Amino acid sequence: MTKITRFSVAPLSGMTRQLADVASGRAEPDLVITGARALSTYSQRTLPGKEFWLSGGRIAAMMPAGSYRGAAPRYDAGGGIIAPGLVDPHIHIESSMITACAYAEAALLNGTTTIFCDSHEIGNVMDVAGVEAMLEDARQAPLSIFLTVPSTVPATSPELETAGGDLTPEKIAALFDKWPEAVALGEKMDFVPVAMSDPRSHAIIQAALERGRPVSGHVYGREFVAAYAAGGVTDTHEAIDVDIAEDLMEAGIWLFLRGGPPTTPWHSLPEAIRVITERGASPKRVAVCTDDRDADDLMLFGLDWVTRQAVACGMKPETAWSMGSLHGATRFGMGDEIGGLGGGRRADLVLLDDDLKPVNTWYGGELMVEHGKVTPRLDQALSQPYRYPEAAYHTVKLPKGLKLTPDLPTAPVIAHAIRTELPGITLPHEKIRLEPANDWQSHFDTHGLCFVTVVERHGKSQGNVAHGLLSNFNLKAGAVASSVGHDSHNIIVAGTNEADMAVALQAIEAAQGGVCVVMDGQVTAMVELPVAGLLSDKRVGVVAEEVKALKVEWEKAGCTIPYMGFNLIPLSVIPEIRITDKGLVLVPEMAIQPLFESAE
Amino acid sequence: MTKITRFSVAPLSGMTRQLADVASGRAEPDLVITGARALSTYSQRTLPGKEFWLSGGRIAAMMPAGSYRGAAPRYDAGGGIIAPGLVDPHIHIESSMITACAYAEAALLNGTTTIFCDSHEIGNVMDVAGVEAMLEDARQAPLSIFLTVPSTVPATSPELETAGGDLTPEKIAALFDKWPEAVALGEKMDFVPVAMSDPRSHAIIQAALERGRPVSGHVYGREFVAAYAAGGVTDTHEAIDVDIAEDLMEAGIWLFLRGGPPTTPWHSLPEAIRVITERGASPKRVAVCTDDRDADDLMLFGLDWVTRQAVACGMKPETAWSMGSLHGATRFGMGDEIGGLGGGRRADLVLLDDDLKPVNTWYGGELMVEHGKVTPRLDQALSQPYRYPEAAYHTVKLPKGLKLTPDLPTAPVIAHAIRTELPGITLPHEKIRLEPANDWQSHFDTHGLCFVTVVERHGKSQGNVAHGLLSNFNLKAGAVASSVGHDSHNIIVAGTNEADMAVALQAIEAAQGGVCVVMDGQVTAMVELPVAGLLSDKRVGVVAEEVKALKVEWEKAGCTIPYMGFNLIPLSVIPEIRITDKGLVLVPEMAIQPLFESAE
Repeated sequence: MTKITRFSVAPLSGMTRQLADVASGRAEPDLVITGARALSTYSQRTLPGKEFWLSGGRIAAMMPAGSYRGAAPRYDAGGGIIAPGLVDPHIHIESSMITACAYAEAALLNGTTTIFCDSHEIGNVMDVAGVEAMLEDARQAPLSIFLTVPSTVPATSPELETAGGDLTPEKIAALFDKWPEAVALGEKMDFVPVAMSDPRSHAIIQAALERGRPVSGHVYGREFVAAYAAGGVTDTHEAIDVDIAEDLMEAGIWLFLRGGPPTTPWHSLPEAIRVITERGASPKRVAVCTDDRDADDLMLFGLDWVTRQAVACGMKPETAWSMGSLHGATRFGMGDEIGGLGGGRRADLVLLDDDLKPVNTWYGGELMVEHGKVTPRLDQALSQPYRYPEAAYHTVKLPKGLKLTPDLPTAPVIAHAIRTELPGITLPHEKIRLEPANDWQSHFDTHGLCFVTVVERHGKSQGNVAHGLLSNFNLKAGAVASSVGHDSHNIIVAGTNEADMAVALQAIEAAQGGVCVVMDGQVTAMVELPVAGLLSDKRVGVVAEEVKALKVEWEKAGCTIPYMGFNLIPLSVIPEIRITDKGLVLVPEMAIQPLFESAE
Repeated sequence: MTKITRFSVAPLSGMTRQLADVASGRAEPDLVITGARALSTYSQRTLPGKEFWLSGGRIAAMMPAGSYRGAAPRYDAGGGIIAPGLVDPHIHIESSMITACAYAEAALLNGTTTIFCDSHEIGNVMDVAGVEAMLEDARQAPLSIFLTVPSTVPATSPELETAGGDLTPEKIAALFDKWPEAVALGEKMDFVPVAMSDPRSHAIIQAALERGRPVSGHVYGREFVAAYAAGGVTDTHEAIDVDIAEDLMEAGIWLFLRGGPPTTPWHSLPEAIRVITERGASPKRVAVCTDDRDADDLMLFGLDWVTRQAVACGMKPETAWSMGSLHGATRFGMGDEIGGLGGGRRADLVLLDDDLKPVNTWYGGELMVEHGKVTPRLDQALSQPYRYPEAAYHTVKLPKGLKLTPDLPTAPVIAHAIRTELPGITLPHEKIRLEPANDWQSHFDTHGLCFVTVVERHGKSQGNVAHGLLSNFNLKAGAVASSVGHDSHNIIVAGTNEADMAVALQAIEAAQGGVCVVMDGQVTAMVELPVAGLLSDKRVGVVAEEVKALKVEWEKAGCTIPYMGFNLIPLSVIPEIRITDKGLVLVPEMAIQPLFESAE
C-alpha cells in the first residue's frame, strides 16, 4: 500500500477518458458514496438524495442516490451532508510548531484538505534552504499544500536586527521558477514601504506578477489601502473591522476573514463579515482562513470552526462552506480542481453533520478520518514523515559566557521599559525613573519589572545580546524563554534572575530550539522545537499536549501575556517599543534606543 | 500618436511603483474621471460619489469624488455610472463576417472591452494559418482579444465532408505554446465523442489541461452532462433550459448565458437564468455571452443588451453587470486585470446611463466612444487595420464546368429532401416520391422544392459537387449562395435553375467569398467576403449596411429561413439530414445517403 500524498491522484489531463467511462457507466468506479445530501458550493444550495462515483481519486460524477447498481464498494453516508474539503487560503504552518506532515493530521481531522501556507518563519531562520525543506515536507504530507512564497524576509533591516534569512527578489523568482506549487507571493507585510514605492518591495512584487502569480497582502490602516491595491496586492486576511473590509473589497482585494480563539484579537471575522451581513456586499470574493494556530488550538478552532462562525454571524450554511472551500480555490485559480463536487475534481470530500461538523474526511478518494478518528490509512501516511535535513537540526548557535542581564545602574536613570498588557500586540513604551538600589529585585518590586534579553542565535554576530526590562509582565520568579522570537527568531528570555535565565537558554540550546518555563533552576515545562528552532518533529497530538502543559506552567509563573504574545516582543514592526538582538527598537522612529538614559 | 491596441497598456508587473505613487498623491494621474457613481462588480452594489485616478492606462485608485485637487485633466461623468468594460467569454468573430479589427469598433460601441473568441471557422478553412492570421489581426485591434483555441476542426470526418483544416492535438498544443493569448480550449463541440471517450477528442482536451488551460464546452442533452464534465469541460454556453442549466452548474461547469435576437432560438438566456431567479442558485459562476451575431445585429443585440436582458429577467443590475464582466474574467483567471474597478486594473471603463446603456467607453484609459459615437482616437485605431496574408484572399478554388443540378429522373424515385422550416436548426428528413416529369420546374411546383448544391472550394478534391433538394424553402426564382457553409465552409447554392446558380457561384468565386442573391441572371445583393471566404475587410458599419440590403433581397426571394440558417444546412452534426460536398448526410446514422432511390 503506497503512502498517500498530493501526488497519489494523477493530473486530470491524463484521466478524462477513464472518468468519462465511469460517468457513462462503461467502467466501474472505485467507490460509491451514497445516501447523501450534497452541499453545492457552486449554487450554494443543499441537494437531496445524491451519490458520488469515485475513480482514481477523483469525482467521476454526482448522481441521484441509488442509481449505481454495480459491484463496486459502497459507503453509506447515512443521510449526512457530503461537501468539498475545506481550503485554507492563508496559514503559517510554523505557528503550530509542527511539520507540514504533522499539520496534515490536524487539517484532515478538521475537514481541511488543501492549504496555502506562507513559510516565512523558517525562511527567516534558514533562508531559501528552510523554505525548500518545508516544501519537501509538504510534498510528503497527506494533504494538498501550496506555497505562497515568503515575501518579507527579513521583516525589517540589518540595522535593527540580525536575521537568519534574506529573501531577495532574485531568490524569490528562483523559488517560483523551481516549485510549481509556489502559486502566489505570500503576505507582503511591509505595507508602508509598498505604499511608499520602495524599490526592493516592488521588485519582489514584480517577480511574482511577471510570472503570473498573484500577490497576497497584509495591511492595516484605511489610508494605505488605495496605494497597496495599486501596488498589485489582491488579497488580505487583516481586515479588522467593517470599514477597512469594505475599502479592501472595493479596491479589488479578496477578503480572507480570519477566525481564531475568540479571546484573541485575531478573531476579526465577526467584525469584517458585516460588510456582507449588514452592508449587502456579495460574498463571492470572500473566503475564511485561520492564519495562525497553537498546536492545541488547532483541534478546537480549525477552519471548520471558522466556517461555522460565519454561519453564527448570519451566513447561510452553504455560503459559509463555499467561503471555506471554493472561494479560496477560485482566488488561486484552482476552482476546476478543488472546492466543489463537480465532475473531474479531486475526491477531497467531507461528511458533515447538520451543524457542519466534519465526521469523515476523504482525501483523494481515500478515507482518512472516520467518525472523527484517524483511519489506519492516515495513520500509515503519518508514520513515515519527512525528515528535515541535518542542518535544520542545528540552528541555535550560541557563544559561551553570555551576559544575560544589564548592570545595575549606580546613578539615577530613566529606564526605557516595554510594558506588556493584553491583548499583547501593541507594547507601550514606558519611561521609569530608577534611583540607585542595592539589587535588581528591589527595582522589580517597586516598579513591577523583570529582565528581558534577546540573544542572536544564527551564528551571524559575535554573540549579540540585548538587555531590556519588561513592565507589568508579572513574572514573580524564574524565567521563560523561546527560540520563536518573531520574525528573526532569535532567542528571547525573560526572568527575575540570571541563573534561571541561563538555565532556560541552555535548555533551548540543548534541544536546538523550544519554548520553556524555568523555576528554581529546573525546567518545569518545555516544548522542544529542534527543527529550525521552530518546529517539533512529533505528531500534532503530542505537541498539543506539550503546549497544554507549557501553558499551565506559563500561567502559574504569572506571565501577563501568553507565550504567543511573548514571542512577538521582538517583532519590531508593531508599536511602540520592542527588543531585538541589536537593542531596544522604537517602532515609530525605527531607531535603536539605549536602555538607560541619565536622569541627572 | 501611437495606435491603440491591447499592448498600449504595459503589464502591471512593471507599473506598481508608478501606480502606488499616484494613489498616494506623490505623482500626478493622467486623467481623473470624477462625479460618478461606481458600479462595483466585487460587492455588487452601486457606490455614490466616486472618482477614478488613471495612470498609464490603469486605475491607480477609486477615490471619493472631489478628492483630486491637482492639475491633471478631469472628465466629468455628470453623475452617471462608471462600470468596468464588458467581457464576452464566448464569441465567434467570423459570425459577424468582419475582421477582429472591425469587430473592435462594434464591441467598444457596446461597452465591451474584452472578448474570448473561438476562431474555428477560419480554422476550418485555413487550418493553423487561419487561426494565426486572426491572432495577428486581434493583436492589432483596439480591443483585448483572447483566443479559445478551436477544438473541433473538422466538425466531422473526411468520409462525410472535405474540410480546409484539420487541427490535430499536436497543432493545438503548438498554438498554446506559441500564443500566450490562447488562454483556453474552445468549445468542444463533439460532445458525444467526448462522452464516449474518443481518443482524438480526449487527446485535444489533454493538450489543453496539461498546459493549465481550461476547456470550454458545447453540449446538448442532460444525459451527456456527467460524462462531459468528467471529461474535463468547465464551461458551456448551450444551456437551453433551466433543467440542463442546473445539471451543468452542479457538475461544476460555468454557465455562459447566451442572449441573441429574441426571435431566434439562440436567445436561451431567459430560460436558463431561471436556475438563479427561480431555483435560488448563486450567480457567481454565471456569465453572459453573445456567441454569434450578424454584423447588423451586433449593434442592436450586443453584450450590453444581453446584460440588460438579465436585468429584465429579474437580476439586480449590479449582479447582471458583474455577470457581463467580472465573472467571465474570473472564469479565465483574469479577475485581477479586468472586470472590476480595483486598483491596478486596466482602465477599461464605461459610462452608463441608469438603464445600463453605454454612453462612453474608455479602453486602456483612452476615450474611444463618447456619447455613443466613435472618437477620433478610435477612428485612428480603425484606420490602420491588419491586412490578412495574401493566401487568405485566395481560398475559393473551383474547377471549371461544374454541374450544379442533378439529372432529371426518368423513372419513379424516392427523393431524400431536406425540409427547411423555422427556427432553422433541425432540418427534417423528407422522403418525396417523384414521378417522371418533363422538367424540374414541375416537380418544384408540385412538391415545393428547389435545388441545393454544395461545391467543395478548398481545392482538395477534383471538384466535389453534391446535389440535393430543399423542400419548403419557398424560393420561387433565381438563386442564393454562400461561401460560409458551416463548418467546412464549402459553397452552398440553392436555386430554381442552373443558370442563376452558376451566376451566384461565379460571383462568389470572383469575390473569393460572399453571400449573395441572384435573380434573372443578376446579382441583386451581395456581401463580399474575400478573407478566407468568411470575412469582409470593411468596417462594421459598412458590412452591417450590406447585410441589411442582403436581408431585404433574401426576404424578397421568399426564402423560408434566413441566411444564417441557410449557412447551417451543410452542418452535418445537427439532425436530421444535411448536405456536404460528399452528398446528403443522415445525421443519426452518420452516413451518406444517395439523393434518389428507385421507387419501382
